[in-house]
Amino acid sequence: MRVAFIGVGHMGLPMCANLLKAGHAVTAYDLVAAHLDRAVAAGAARATSVADCVAQAEAVVTMLPSSPHVRSVYCGESGVIARAARGALLVDCSTIDPQVAREVAFDSLARGLTMVDAPVSGGTAGAQAGTLTFMVGGSAKEFEAARPLLACMGTNVVHCGASGNGQVAKICNNMMLAAGMIATSEAMTLAARLGMDPTVFAGIVNASSGRCWSSDTYNPYPGVMEGVPAARGYSGGFGTDLMLKDLSLATEAARVARVPVLLGAVAQQVYQKHSADGHGAEDFSSVILQYLKT
Amino acid sequence: MRVAFIGVGHMGLPMCANLLKAGHAVTAYDLVAAHLDRAVAAGAARATSVADCVAQAEAVVTMLPSSPHVRSVYCGESGVIARAARGALLVDCSTIDPQVAREVAFDSLARGLTMVDAPVSGGTAGAQAGTLTFMVGGSAKEFEAARPLLACMGTNVVHCGASGNGQVAKICNNMMLAAGMIATSEAMTLAARLGMDPTVFAGIVNASSGRCWSSDTYNPYPGVMEGVPAARGYSGGFGTDLMLKDLSLATEAARVARVPVLLGAVAQQVYQKHSADGHGAEDFSSVILQYLKT
Amino acid sequence: MRVAFIGVGHMGLPMCANLLKAGHAVTAYDLVAAHLDRAVAAGAARATSVADCVAQAEAVVTMLPSSPHVRSVYCGESGVIARAARGALLVDCSTIDPQVAREVAFDSLARGLTMVDAPVSGGTAGAQAGTLTFMVGGSAKEFEAARPLLACMGTNVVHCGASGNGQVAKICNNMMLAAGMIATSEAMTLAARLGMDPTVFAGIVNASSGRCWSSDTYNPYPGVMEGVPAARGYSGGFGTDLMLKDLSLATEAARVARVPVLLGAVAQQVYQKHSADGHGAEDFSSVILQYLKT
Amino acid sequence: MRVAFIGVGHMGLPMCANLLKAGHAVTAYDLVAAHLDRAVAAGAARATSVADCVAQAEAVVTMLPSSPHVRSVYCGESGVIARAARGALLVDCSTIDPQVAREVAFDSLARGLTMVDAPVSGGTAGAQAGTLTFMVGGSAKEFEAARPLLACMGTNVVHCGASGNGQVAKICNNMMLAAGMIATSEAMTLAARLGMDPTVFAGIVNASSGRCWSSDTYNPYPGVMEGVPAARGYSGGFGTDLMLKDLSLATEAARVARVPVLLGAVAQQVYQKHSADGHGAEDFSSVILQYLKT
Repeated sequence: MRVAFIGVGHMGLPMCANLLKAGHAVTAYDLVAAHLDRAVAAGAARATSVADCVAQAEAVVTMLPSSPHVRSVYCGESGVIARAARGALLVDCSTIDPQVAREVAFDSLARGLTMVDAPVSGGTAGAQAGTLTFMVGGSAKEFEAARPLLACMGTNVVHCGASGNGQVAKICNNMMLAAGMIATSEAMTLAARLGMDPTVFAGIVNASSGRCWSSDTYNPYPGVMEGVPAARGYSGGFGTDLMLKDLSLATEAARVARVPVLLGAVAQQVYQKHSADGHGAEDFSSVILQYLKT
Repeated sequence: MRVAFIGVGHMGLPMCANLLKAGHAVTAYDLVAAHLDRAVAAGAARATSVADCVAQAEAVVTMLPSSPHVRSVYCGESGVIARAARGALLVDCSTIDPQVAREVAFDSLARGLTMVDAPVSGGTAGAQAGTLTFMVGGSAKEFEAARPLLACMGTNVVHCGASGNGQVAKICNNMMLAAGMIATSEAMTLAARLGMDPTVFAGIVNASSGRCWSSDTYNPYPGVMEGVPAARGYSGGFGTDLMLKDLSLATEAARVARVPVLLGAVAQQVYQKHSADGHGAEDFSSVILQYLKT
Repeated sequence: MRVAFIGVGHMGLPMCANLLKAGHAVTAYDLVAAHLDRAVAAGAARATSVADCVAQAEAVVTMLPSSPHVRSVYCGESGVIARAARGALLVDCSTIDPQVAREVAFDSLARGLTMVDAPVSGGTAGAQAGTLTFMVGGSAKEFEAARPLLACMGTNVVHCGASGNGQVAKICNNMMLAAGMIATSEAMTLAARLGMDPTVFAGIVNASSGRCWSSDTYNPYPGVMEGVPAARGYSGGFGTDLMLKDLSLATEAARVARVPVLLGAVAQQVYQKHSADGHGAEDFSSVILQYLKT
Repeated sequence: MRVAFIGVGHMGLPMCANLLKAGHAVTAYDLVAAHLDRAVAAGAARATSVADCVAQAEAVVTMLPSSPHVRSVYCGESGVIARAARGALLVDCSTIDPQVAREVAFDSLARGLTMVDAPVSGGTAGAQAGTLTFMVGGSAKEFEAARPLLACMGTNVVHCGASGNGQVAKICNNMMLAAGMIATSEAMTLAARLGMDPTVFAGIVNASSGRCWSSDTYNPYPGVMEGVPAARGYSGGFGTDLMLKDLSLATEAARVARVPVLLGAVAQQVYQKHSADGHGAEDFSSVILQYLKT
């Protein structure tokens, strides 16, 4: 398949590489020359613009930082929607505002193109290993069209319902994740300060009603689990600033939908403080330092 | 074994009944005559006071509403500690302030008695079925001494470390549980309002990093799971006011320990509002009505 | 002076009327025909488009609902910046994102126009009475240029510093106002529930360190003050949904500026809940019903 | 008048000294020998116990750290209530739980004694200068009986209504104060970070609806006001840990009264974090460092 890949940064590059490994013919584009060079080194053809990149493609995959970037790449006279070939499949893997995702998909549909939103979880490690999870929004037919391509880059391709629902699933999941991580941080710190062994406490919680992914799979308390960021000074993993971005998308979507999200908003501010304190590049489980380090 | 059981209300009565079924000779006491009558009807001998109840007992089990009740029953001239026989085993199953639990255990030790704190989870259903979980604080030796008795009333008897740690485990677990339930309520409501099928969303979260016990085992969104309070109008289960009590114990313990627990305190106020709105007797998963019903 | 006035809704219409009263020749424009009809009835000339409205104007005043509206009216080929006469003074009275205000002012400057941001406080009552407060962002020279015009519509014209600072002052002030109103609501309710006369409590707080504008000038507790919305069922005044809009601007600006605003974010969610409960059109002091009415 | 003064620490000592200056004959008592020595050096007679201290007194003034201390000094066989002379006036200036204040006053009444709760504001500076504010709970007759004595130690003696209302006024006022200080800290930091001069912003807010005591009289932003703790590195003033104590009393009273106090609880946790970060002994306006110093 002839695939155009736009946005070959930390996440996009290994995803692009996995498409190449799977035998697809990939043409890449990125505004950052160094990113594009790396994609070419990995075997992609070099495009000189968005329009150039998508002109011959049967499928277009994009991995971009935020809603305005997606609008800018997809819309306008030289954008993907205007320049992609009739019948092309458009797959946006960026994490963005569900409303923007729906607007762009609507514009694509209006030009007879097939588009899905397919944000990912799994981080750069998952991108390299090809074990990402894709949360896909689009009709059943669009989902089936996108699935084989996504399966080259991830092991878990989930249909979330209509257009935009991939984004909804991603940001709502991450809002729960942030609250769970902070609640775990508070409870682990409190239990330890009240005299309990943190590992014993984690064991009890994880067999009980307090358990969550942050306590049983990604525990933030140093020394409780191996192989997690807490075991290596909070390096690697899913960065604080990326969590902060997703929380902003969630509280903004909640504002528009008129749903109060008190815990989500408090979690956002805790991460805002944590980032302002200089932990933006560390794994998001380092938020426990807001409690432990005082 | 000759067992004294003090506090035979909603929880204490079925626990007492399970001790009787296991063949223990139980003498019961309760300030509320109707409670005591029911225990006697179930086969217990009737005591006329705390002192009378514990005088001949090899083991004393207490199930009381709050810290002051525990102090009042255990301490003073006519209390359990003064009146229990040398060598008696004292087991307090109440959920109370860990600090009070430690003080009472210390006073017991000073008189040569063995005491453990053993708060429970599992609710009245677990008490009746004999499937409670006991979180036990005390030395290894004290834990082993208490274990056979607790095994008559529950299926899961967990050693949490030294005296008071049963309480620590219970209240810290429940603080995480409350935050998880509210976060699940917010995210489920938001996802639904943004156009996703709640059952599809729950399925995705429960296979991903946002999952917690409240989302995968006790989902508060009506129609998503069967057999949970959300499927029967939030009746039964673990009441809002009981959760509120445990959150108060957790934030108070955090105050004394000088640990900030921002999410815990916000969760407490959300439950305070929910109780003030008239939902105190409903299952704590009904907190989703704060979000859904607007 | 020949003035173009764009946006003659609830706020804009009385402001426009006050310019007419002061002797200015006003040409009005609004997308909503009914609004424009009322402005014409009040004495304004009717324009058929933004471009038509500003073509002959020495000054342009805009009063629009949100950032995208301001961008849309000012920017583009048919916008104010492209079509206003050289040397025209541009005054935007909308409350919007400070960053957007700065971008639009920058574009104006680039075309040799003078622009200030001048959001207001005082509500529709102040607009009608000509007693608004204007918080003005722009250079000292620009401020002096705008002042006479603003003085026709308000009694308090305050220079807040460089471009965008009018918006900063407005949204940061209102974030404090929202927190003060909620804190007053909580404390008044708590004092009353603990047995104190609310009027006595208000009197003490207002002579002490707890006082704020919401407690001493706009008390939300029914019966404590006369002439405030609480004395008339929370009608009139500054609507819940308008406060919600300003809180969104504040938390969004804080996100971009990387300042954690925990109380601001909690206040936003309390107002989100209050709006979702159906109080969006009531005065923002009705938030006390979240506490009193349970 | 023969006055017994119990509790002559940082606050009690200068209050005691002002009673001596006013010509009263004071007998002092304190568990801490060094405190008592200083009171004797200031002219008080030395008592050897609570009972000894109050035996001959016409009035008893107490200034103690917390509810348990007040209970311990007033109740029991050797306490103030049992040992004070018939007709003695009891004045408790401690800041404690309103419920405890009411219980102790009730016990006093039952023995035919007159008791008021009269917590203070004004800090050690006000205590030394004799310019304290007393918030007095008790009947009109009791208030009048206590007023002359309180007037020796303060300039503002306010009747708050029935017994316990002095405490209610104090803790509800301070809950508003804490929220106001944190909201001011957030808004001042945000305005400055968005490019506004902090002094200009303070000036605008203080003439507008965002103003509160923390912004117009005790501004926390360094350089905005003179003579406040922010102008001297946050030394002196009203300590973070004292604010934390009052917030705990307020949220605990709210819990018992079943009033949700979301902002109050968040403020408590912000101060808990600030104290845990090592700022417990600094003025409470130093909480702005949670925002500025990141």
